[in-house]
Amino acid sequence: MSADQRLNDLGVELPEAPAPAGVYKPIVVTGNMAYVSGHGPLKTDGSMTTGRVGTETDLEGGKESARQTGLAILATLKANLGSLDRVKRVVKVLGMVNAAPDFKDHPQVINGCSELFGEVWGPENGIGARSAVGMGSLPGNITTEIEVIFELA
Amino acid sequence: MSADQRLNDLGVELPEAPAPAGVYKPIVVTGNMAYVSGHGPLKTDGSMTTGRVGTETDLEGGKESARQTGLAILATLKANLGSLDRVKRVVKVLGMVNAAPDFKDHPQVINGCSELFGEVWGPENGIGARSAVGMGSLPGNITTEIEVIFELA
Amino acid sequence: MSADQRLNDLGVELPEAPAPAGVYKPIVVTGNMAYVSGHGPLKTDGSMTTGRVGTETDLEGGKESARQTGLAILATLKANLGSLDRVKRVVKVLGMVNAAPDFKDHPQVINGCSELFGEVWGPENGIGARSAVGMGSLPGNITTEIEVIFELA
Repeated sequence: MSADQRLNDLGVELPEAPAPAGVYKPIVVTGNMAYVSGHGPLKTDGSMTTGRVGTETDLEGGKESARQTGLAILATLKANLGSLDRVKRVVKVLGMVNAAPDFKDHPQVINGCSELFGEVWGPENGIGARSAVGMGSLPGNITTEIEVIFELA
Repeated sequence: MSADQRLNDLGVELPEAPAPAGVYKPIVVTGNMAYVSGHGPLKTDGSMTTGRVGTETDLEGGKESARQTGLAILATLKANLGSLDRVKRVVKVLGMVNAAPDFKDHPQVINGCSELFGEVWGPENGIGARSAVGMGSLPGNITTEIEVIFELA
Repeated sequence: MSADQRLNDLGVELPEAPAPAGVYKPIVVTGNMAYVSGHGPLKTDGSMTTGRVGTETDLEGGKESARQTGLAILATLKANLGSLDRVKRVVKVLGMVNAAPDFKDHPQVINGCSELFGEVWGPENGIGARSAVGMGSLPGNITTEIEVIFELA
């Protein structure tokens, strides 16, 4: 089954592919590697999930934000590559959490994105290397920002 | 027009290529990819721009720091590659801002570097994928630190 | 002399290769590049070094944590590649320090990992490009988290 089909079967709605909020490209392809810019949790209404995990929102809110961030990344991939089946595998995820200084569960937050990718590309190709860490602040106080390196088929 | 010529036309002065402040190389080339270490806003007098954005300096100070950080990266490229024309394109920028916890405009800060790269290599090749995020702290309290992956010609 | 032999001569004991603490792989190899996930300072008793540098621990404690983090990375490499001699060179290190907001010596902390890599693969191949920066928080309040890109032979 194709990744596009799997996404369809999840019954989720992608946001519009996000426009850059600065001087950058959402994705750069070089050779068979695609470098995807840090994405935020863009929703289908065009707004972003905001709030610091541990004070303004909790672990579940953070994980939901990470999944939404993953959906924004999928939107960028579809808009720029045409199909999610162009992706051979997830290579590396940098999951950045807008977290309180004493927050400890960053991996569980970023799992919201990683589980989505696993659902779309499967447990072998959809799961990559990863860091999940706490930032001092994020643009517009968004809850999560995630950048990814994909290998293309 | 060459990138070296464009830099010349900007009328800016590069700092000396920065010496490592630890156990690392300023740049590593593997295949046609150049990985440039996190650089700080090194000035021509050898000092660094310091201060947290949102408390010790403001958005404009941060953006100026990001541009200066870009100039330090250009100095490293010239010293190690001989010419900025060795760069085919900017692939990925990680722009790290020493920001107050409630700061929100990280993309606008890092634009100071990205706009410089656009001036040097043009809007297509000079603009890459990017993340622009807020750190808890940076070495020596520098205002910005930026690392970049370049594709070489 | 081989890297495995050099590690042996150091007389250090590696921890068990760490199991993932979330939905990710410890290492992904694509082409001749190995992307290693963010690792923490896993000790041979299975515990992690914790505490923020500048408040709960000091520079020396941070540097020791970074070295321990490097040992955990070596354990992952050996478990997944069979031998440290599969590594041709260190390409890029992202050294993340759980640091107080006014901490300034991140490079000296991450040197604990970089010096270890230099001992194992030598000063040319063991030392790569690097960023050493301060995070707002890290999973489980670990003192350091480090991710690395290696080129394989």
